[in-house]
Amino acid sequence: MVPADHPLGGHSLYGVYAVQMAPSTSVLQHSYLQLAQQVRRDIAQQRYAPGERLPSVRALAAAQGVSVATVVRCYRHLEALGAVQARHKSGIYVAGPAAARVAPDTSNDMGTLGPQAGAQSKPPPVEFDRLVSLEHRMTELYSLTTQQPLQWGLHLANASPAWYPTDALARIAQRLLRSQPEMLGAYPTGSGLPALRTELAGWMATYGLDLQPEELLVTNGSTEALNVALRAVTRPGDAVVVESPVYFGLLQMLGNLGLRAIELPCTPGEGMSLEALEYALEHQSGVRAVVAMPNFQNPLGHVMPDRNKRRLLRLVEQHDLALIEDDVFGDLSHTPQRPQPVKAWDRHGRVIYCGSSSKSLAPAFRLGWTSGGRWHARMESLKLSTSLAAPWLEQAVMAEFMRSGELQVHLRRLRERLTQTTPRATDAVRKYFPAGTRVHSPAGGWWLWLELPHPVDTLALLRQSVAQGIAFTPGALFSTTAKYASHLRLNTARPWTRELEQAVRQLGQLATRAQ
Amino acid sequence: MVPADHPLGGHSLYGVYAVQMAPSTSVLQHSYLQLAQQVRRDIAQQRYAPGERLPSVRALAAAQGVSVATVVRCYRHLEALGAVQARHKSGIYVAGPAAARVAPDTSNDMGTLGPQAGAQSKPPPVEFDRLVSLEHRMTELYSLTTQQPLQWGLHLANASPAWYPTDALARIAQRLLRSQPEMLGAYPTGSGLPALRTELAGWMATYGLDLQPEELLVTNGSTEALNVALRAVTRPGDAVVVESPVYFGLLQMLGNLGLRAIELPCTPGEGMSLEALEYALEHQSGVRAVVAMPNFQNPLGHVMPDRNKRRLLRLVEQHDLALIEDDVFGDLSHTPQRPQPVKAWDRHGRVIYCGSSSKSLAPAFRLGWTSGGRWHARMESLKLSTSLAAPWLEQAVMAEFMRSGELQVHLRRLRERLTQTTPRATDAVRKYFPAGTRVHSPAGGWWLWLELPHPVDTLALLRQSVAQGIAFTPGALFSTTAKYASHLRLNTARPWTRELEQAVRQLGQLATRAQ
Repeated sequence: MVPADHPLGGHSLYGVYAVQMAPSTSVLQHSYLQLAQQVRRDIAQQRYAPGERLPSVRALAAAQGVSVATVVRCYRHLEALGAVQARHKSGIYVAGPAAARVAPDTSNDMGTLGPQAGAQSKPPPVEFDRLVSLEHRMTELYSLTTQQPLQWGLHLANASPAWYPTDALARIAQRLLRSQPEMLGAYPTGSGLPALRTELAGWMATYGLDLQPEELLVTNGSTEALNVALRAVTRPGDAVVVESPVYFGLLQMLGNLGLRAIELPCTPGEGMSLEALEYALEHQSGVRAVVAMPNFQNPLGHVMPDRNKRRLLRLVEQHDLALIEDDVFGDLSHTPQRPQPVKAWDRHGRVIYCGSSSKSLAPAFRLGWTSGGRWHARMESLKLSTSLAAPWLEQAVMAEFMRSGELQVHLRRLRERLTQTTPRATDAVRKYFPAGTRVHSPAGGWWLWLELPHPVDTLALLRQSVAQGIAFTPGALFSTTAKYASHLRLNTARPWTRELEQAVRQLGQLATRAQ
Repeated sequence: MVPADHPLGGHSLYGVYAVQMAPSTSVLQHSYLQLAQQVRRDIAQQRYAPGERLPSVRALAAAQGVSVATVVRCYRHLEALGAVQARHKSGIYVAGPAAARVAPDTSNDMGTLGPQAGAQSKPPPVEFDRLVSLEHRMTELYSLTTQQPLQWGLHLANASPAWYPTDALARIAQRLLRSQPEMLGAYPTGSGLPALRTELAGWMATYGLDLQPEELLVTNGSTEALNVALRAVTRPGDAVVVESPVYFGLLQMLGNLGLRAIELPCTPGEGMSLEALEYALEHQSGVRAVVAMPNFQNPLGHVMPDRNKRRLLRLVEQHDLALIEDDVFGDLSHTPQRPQPVKAWDRHGRVIYCGSSSKSLAPAFRLGWTSGGRWHARMESLKLSTSLAAPWLEQAVMAEFMRSGELQVHLRRLRERLTQTTPRATDAVRKYFPAGTRVHSPAGGWWLWLELPHPVDTLALLRQSVAQGIAFTPGALFSTTAKYASHLRLNTARPWTRELEQAVRQLGQLATRAQ
């Protein structure tokens, strides 16, 4: 219980701004709003419980150093919003739970650090019967996974933060900030920092891509690269071929761009079925592009064999399509061999290549890159009018990290770790999940894709596991259809410990009970 | 002249990668491509002139520590590309200028640091008769201004880098990187760092916006905010009302989204003509949104009076539209009064508010924010599928800078500087430009908008001034029509020196001669 004369938040925003702004600006007319904002925040954070009495007008005015009139305006404003109730001759009270609750954050954050999200208000109940569309499934999933304290976020898209060279990157950033702080005061080059594009071109040449720095465009993650690529080659109403199962972010993107997804099955050893592709291209109209991850597909983790890559390219050429190649896991092979992207065989500018540092180097950098072939100029214009430029610092740090040769060293270590963890995770699944569970062992990347032997709603399973602090990605997200309802995806890029093995065991037990 | 046995670039990329990658990966099959890339770069940078003999196969192999076969493959590859010519019994020569020239970078960078762009190859001639569309005008303008060494980039969108608190920001960044380097290894929250959203909500409350942190979305600059806002409220083919003259980036964005721009005249003291707006809304179909900068419009610098802001909001409500309010210059008043955004009167969620740190704090951060009213959830989804999240570091630095109260101090200083520079720049224009030149003195921000007294093609004028190291933005960019052909925009956010006064004088003399 907070006493009625307790000042409203000693280090509140209000205190900081009101004091500093008073002398030089005439903004005090709004101080009641700032005060109201602070009171609402205190209510949301349960410093004042529903039904509790708030400080008196005089007490609050004295505590905050504002006029009585300001507090009266503040309380009137909150009353109009339904956040507080004035009771005759008694005082101001926090309204009942329904009225006082701040709207929950329904943003569908991918791969957030669990603890950050813990500051939210209580999680709303997830209504699984309302999960009709993919967008709903995503929104509900992420409110579920971000509003509970999770010990094992095996749904996240990044490797363990300890597996990234964050200290080395931070040191480079510090050096650059010391030597060139003035760079923060200028607009970065729209198509990307020249030094980074030079390093990327050199890097990509090591796996068969002959691209000049001018043929690269730096983007805000590969998400922006894919988005700009799709906008360059399609118009709303067009159809786009994708792999099935497929990364749900792509399905959401297609929906948001008004594009139809044609989901073609993948064969583990072969990737997207090219027979199915040929059939679809002959029988479907309005297809403009194929989006594929030939290297370490998400979630299957397979590599398309080179002969299939070449055949895919020929099909794309014959049908006058664009191939948008998502190679974000390409550097994370479990063998010493870095597979070539389809782009390596592209002689006619049909392939739009998309890469990213988010998986391999630094998720928080949000740096991606793309080379758009015959659509490159169009993509540059679209990128410019979508977000102008990527931030300078991350680009400069990554360029320097690559220039020093450290990327190669880091990737070797990361690949070794993945190569060690994956079989242990696979073994644990075989040991603890129901007999007959199919687990697809990846050739690269960090996903395990599981199919349970009997029909089980893995969305419902997730609800149970989240209550035990363990999250995964339910199969329902990997298609617009319901065909992966009994599947689930696990992130294995975590140090393999007894505790993690125990978590997989718990998950397996929940799955067994659900059968 | 480089001797024929000169090694190809001692610190070339090739050297770094080939040495480091050889032991652990089987990528050497591609080393001829890396070598070819280095040779092409050397040619582009004129280390080898057109027609010059390149190192012999043996000399290059020895210098680079690669096999003769690799060099042969490299030269064959370059020959196939037309970059080199093999002459019988003589050797390998750089091809003639046409074949050897690397494609010029046609990206239309806004506000790049001049020197960075200096590394490009020679500027191609600008063909003004080809500047038929806005897109062409922009592309040509930016190849003109980025491919010459400019002493006075008065076309740039940022204030003088020295006017930003870059050292303070760099210190905060260093502190955060020391204490939380692990944050680089995690995905940032999709809708924005909670700490930044909290600071922004508190800040915005000081000028009349009552928004909770959850009602804000952090974007990659206000460009992304505008883009996502437009996509949330329109479909291709719809019409959008804009001010005239208008920021050309917005016109490009509308074109890229398949939207029609309805350009309505602005009156200096009043902003967008609401009479014209009423007329347009009665006679035009398919209008879905109004995009406006009521505070310190770009390029006019005026403020729309509060009564007009309220009337604009009523019109938007009556016609069931969205008002997308671009407030990026709002903090840069030349008086102590920070004008309220229209959003402050919005009770029905009709206003999508867009702000940015790019003008006021740090152009290289690429941080913007938006509050989307009734379209907010839709915008969150679109933002997520456009670029997932903004980088962590810049968000954390800005939050900390705001929390410490330094933003207020910095802005006061920046406003003082603008208030001092603007009248001096205005006086210089009156003194040195042709008599009858109309100059519009701004109430905030840093643009001077000039109209020359007699018809002059300011695009042609730019061509002349760039040859003297001075750039501005020609009026032709501020409309899809030709009505501002005799106008130009100058950035005055530079320390006022005798040299700058001299540059304005030179520009005035060129304009006088062109009359």
